[in-house]
Amino acid sequence: MAKVVECIPNISEGRRLDVVEEIVGEVKKVPGVTLLDYSSNADHNRTVITFIGEPEGVLEAAWRLIVKAADKIDLGRHQGEHPRMGATDVCPFVPVREVTMDECVELARKLGERVGQELNIPVYLYERAATRPERRNLAEVRRGQYEGIKESINTPERKPDYGPSVMGKAGAIAIGARPPLVAFNINLGTTNLDIAKAIAKGIRGSSGGFVNIKALGVELAAQGMVQISMNMVDTQATPLYRAMEYIKAEAAHYGVPVIGSEIVGLVPLDSMLDVASYYLKLGDFSYEQILEKRVFRF
Amino acid sequence: MAKVVECIPNISEGRRLDVVEEIVGEVKKVPGVTLLDYSSNADHNRTVITFIGEPEGVLEAAWRLIVKAADKIDLGRHQGEHPRMGATDVCPFVPVREVTMDECVELARKLGERVGQELNIPVYLYERAATRPERRNLAEVRRGQYEGIKESINTPERKPDYGPSVMGKAGAIAIGARPPLVAFNINLGTTNLDIAKAIAKGIRGSSGGFVNIKALGVELAAQGMVQISMNMVDTQATPLYRAMEYIKAEAAHYGVPVIGSEIVGLVPLDSMLDVASYYLKLGDFSYEQILEKRVFRF
Repeated sequence: MAKVVECIPNISEGRRLDVVEEIVGEVKKVPGVTLLDYSSNADHNRTVITFIGEPEGVLEAAWRLIVKAADKIDLGRHQGEHPRMGATDVCPFVPVREVTMDECVELARKLGERVGQELNIPVYLYERAATRPERRNLAEVRRGQYEGIKESINTPERKPDYGPSVMGKAGAIAIGARPPLVAFNINLGTTNLDIAKAIAKGIRGSSGGFVNIKALGVELAAQGMVQISMNMVDTQATPLYRAMEYIKAEAAHYGVPVIGSEIVGLVPLDSMLDVASYYLKLGDFSYEQILEKRVFRF
Repeated sequence: MAKVVECIPNISEGRRLDVVEEIVGEVKKVPGVTLLDYSSNADHNRTVITFIGEPEGVLEAAWRLIVKAADKIDLGRHQGEHPRMGATDVCPFVPVREVTMDECVELARKLGERVGQELNIPVYLYERAATRPERRNLAEVRRGQYEGIKESINTPERKPDYGPSVMGKAGAIAIGARPPLVAFNINLGTTNLDIAKAIAKGIRGSSGGFVNIKALGVELAAQGMVQISMNMVDTQATPLYRAMEYIKAEAAHYGVPVIGSEIVGLVPLDSMLDVASYYLKLGDFSYEQILEKRVFRF
């Protein structure tokens, strides 16, 4: 049973694509690590990179990427619409398989210590790796951005977890751990946007719903439908079927049918097997009973 | 995307366990093939062996197993409760992933030709590989068993697909292709066995139900429940959720709840993903969106 961790660093470069290639190239060099995706946004001047593999390889790939980004990106010259504070701006580790959140927190600490010591870059641990409650929230860690943090980094409240209280050209980095996120959208057979908005408000944590669901009601004008667009940020604690069953009940309350759904991007296998097990009311089912697991030993 | 085929040969030896080990050992020698299970029954004097891997490897492993079994087992001396006609009695190929039924039929033919030519063993192709409708049914192919076929093999109707019309000590072999089978049981919150029997009768193909479902109503006395015990012989054409939904509706008709279910043994991943997709009403979902598929490339 192989351990699998996902890592999704965001770098502050989305225009000089040769530089992006060079930085991404560092990830490709590490054996046992699979580059899943990278996409650059010129307006944001930022690139999101996704890779995956066994913990040691992923740690090494993240380190190499950070070293190269620090060498190639100068925050003093960086402009873009997306808030940022460092060459590698954020670097979260996500447990995918046979890995605990604690192990991902440990990876974040290891990487943070090395980045602080060897690169002299200020490191803030965030989300599940945070050492202070207020640092769980990335927006709070990044408040003031590169320019603001440069001024305030000497204050006790901005003291980094690792590295110096001085911002160089590479800025600061937020390293953390979080559960995998699933983008799950449910479509309703109505054009009444108010219904989608009301259901979204009821399901999202920020307004009294499920803590691990972020939701918006949106219009799908071309299809004559409305949609509850969700980010499920912890599908182990708050599974996909729970969102579906809640929305089915609410839609029925409004006399509206659930027409269909979509998952945008990737989804962990266990999130889907949890759905199948729930609806089949499976009792003692073990995911080791999946035939392919015996062959591919994952 | 690796191709995966499963093979489940049954050999006519379940008492001399050293011989069983020697025969199973042939499978272990083939690289890229994973031995999933083997279990011997002394009363039946028979062993069921399950292995899996890429088509070429599985073909080679099946061939080696048949060669060794022909060398070690003498049907003239074999006694056991289970019907049998050969040293390796049956050898079905099952498509698991990225393999069509036609490719499994082709494997059956290739293996059959080699066994007929090189080992001089009469070969009958059965189930999806059958060359005559009456040979689809294994019981029909094996009618009369070793002793009876020895007498009748010269008749036109018993002419083998490959090999001589003569039975040696290794007897004859049925080689075929079939879909994977899932053992799926659904429990009802009642002690009334008549209800389970009535629902089983309604769902099984042999009495007017779904062609790919075999079903029995059984008592779970210790748990105070009854069970519809099913063999789902083609979960692509007749998925698990269809059985669940049909039984839920029938149980409701009798005023009885569905309490839970179980899958005994292995289940192909796609059968489970089909369930999750159905209940989430997923539209454009591709199984390539499963995160682990990117890592393990299965």
